[in-house]
Amino acid sequence: MTLTIGVDVGGTKVASGVVDPVGRILRAASMPTPSTSAAETAEAIATMVGALRASYDVEAVGIGAAGFVDEARSVVRFAPNLAWREEPLRAEVSARVGLPVVVENDANAMAWAEARFGAGRDEDHLVAVTVGTGIGGGMVLDGQLYRGRFGLGAEFGHVRVVPEGRRCGCGNTGCWEQYASGRALVREAQELATASPVRAGRLLELGGGVVAGITGPEVTSAAIEGDPAAIECFAIVGRWLGQGLADLAATLDPGVFVIGGGVSAADDLLLGPARSAYAAALTGRGHRPLADIRVAELGPQAGLVGAADLARHRD
Amino acid sequence: MTLTIGVDVGGTKVASGVVDPVGRILRAASMPTPSTSAAETAEAIATMVGALRASYDVEAVGIGAAGFVDEARSVVRFAPNLAWREEPLRAEVSARVGLPVVVENDANAMAWAEARFGAGRDEDHLVAVTVGTGIGGGMVLDGQLYRGRFGLGAEFGHVRVVPEGRRCGCGNTGCWEQYASGRALVREAQELATASPVRAGRLLELGGGVVAGITGPEVTSAAIEGDPAAIECFAIVGRWLGQGLADLAATLDPGVFVIGGGVSAADDLLLGPARSAYAAALTGRGHRPLADIRVAELGPQAGLVGAADLARHRD
Repeated sequence: MTLTIGVDVGGTKVASGVVDPVGRILRAASMPTPSTSAAETAEAIATMVGALRASYDVEAVGIGAAGFVDEARSVVRFAPNLAWREEPLRAEVSARVGLPVVVENDANAMAWAEARFGAGRDEDHLVAVTVGTGIGGGMVLDGQLYRGRFGLGAEFGHVRVVPEGRRCGCGNTGCWEQYASGRALVREAQELATASPVRAGRLLELGGGVVAGITGPEVTSAAIEGDPAAIECFAIVGRWLGQGLADLAATLDPGVFVIGGGVSAADDLLLGPARSAYAAALTGRGHRPLADIRVAELGPQAGLVGAADLARHRD
Repeated sequence: MTLTIGVDVGGTKVASGVVDPVGRILRAASMPTPSTSAAETAEAIATMVGALRASYDVEAVGIGAAGFVDEARSVVRFAPNLAWREEPLRAEVSARVGLPVVVENDANAMAWAEARFGAGRDEDHLVAVTVGTGIGGGMVLDGQLYRGRFGLGAEFGHVRVVPEGRRCGCGNTGCWEQYASGRALVREAQELATASPVRAGRLLELGGGVVAGITGPEVTSAAIEGDPAAIECFAIVGRWLGQGLADLAATLDPGVFVIGGGVSAADDLLLGPARSAYAAALTGRGHRPLADIRVAELGPQAGLVGAADLARHRD
């Protein structure tokens, strides 16, 4: 049985684990992301890999990172949240651990894991959308991870959905992730609380009485309790999500959408409105099958599991 | 040398030809599209195939049709301009000609032809956009024609680019093809002539003095002459085209865009503004290569050539 190590480099934490061929994590380890230096991160990865190898015989390492990874799966070109530019992460880690290494965009790794072992394991055409603070994306087409010519595909969050719309950290305006993400949910709730404090009474109460105290967890709690204002915030974001999925279906025509990320924990509060909006907006509706919209099954460890499996199938 | 026959079923004309392995048309034939009946169209195709086979030994027939074709490349599910619904075109033609037949969406066939023999022949990741009355799309990813799970991918023209935007024949509003097509060009010119008849003087003159007389050829002629109003109409449509290409690049990250269709004949009048808007709107710009935006090389026969080549590579 061949084992590989998967690593998920996030803005605050580096998670790693030994993964078997059916996607099970045999042992996990994590540590805080060391500042924003790629060299220190490579050192931290090498340390964790060394510790995990003491107990398991592994043949390769897969690394998922939140950034643009080049087509050779070697260099992180640009990682806004890690402040990395043209970092040769594969070479840095490989030199330290003496094993084959592949580097992959974290949302691509998550999509691969869900396609292999999770919510899309019966489907060859899967589009994964991670709804967290922003939107991450990945896709498996005809059974293969699709990376694009330069390794930069599946950046769904930065498709423009509103001309002259809300500002985005990518430098553009009107990006999908400004309308269908955790950040958008908080924005809706805070705007509602500013404009209609009485309607948003429960949200304000949970936020400690101030608009700025209303963050994602407060909106989710209030919605789960049944608070109409919070439910409406989820419905607005869910409709933007569903419209965007319909637009992706016009281009990609997948068999299934898999929705992951923190906001998807709210499940039907978000996905109910998303499914309705998707069905109403899909071009050619009535003359085509509707792709399923499913919640991701592998949770926050999907990136690690996917990176490990991509390292196993590295050739 | 194996030869195949390609057929392109348009709203007004059925074009066919014997095509060799390097994409050359050895003999061509065409006839008017017989009403909107799929059976009569199959009969017409069989007649043309029979005549072409009298002089050439062919091994298969590929048919490109303007509609949604199922994943088995057999049935036209829905063809708005031909009024077809669930037409088993492959079976109808195959029974008549006794050869293997594949059916393909016409824009997919065009994309395949450009990838094999035309403007994208050096690229494995190609997105083709046909700018005619509306917008057709096709894509070759990792060297393969990408059709989607249900055969309905690459309907780029029906991605929503403006919430609550212009009405589209597909039943939605705000579709890209309402902003970046021949129809959009005419709409801009007619609106300009209505609002500013003096500025649009040359357009009105070419249109016989009436707004409704200004159609695509008048706008193109005036722009080629240097008329500023007509050039501005192309620039507006070109900017919408470039923005949409940037959005497609966020998702698909191709190595090249190939722009075909009647409107692309205006070349730099359209593609100059499109290239500028694309470069300005691409997410991650400055940290990624810019895909080329090229004019299609194979002209109106690309669909026929692509269908023939897909029939050759039918397995």
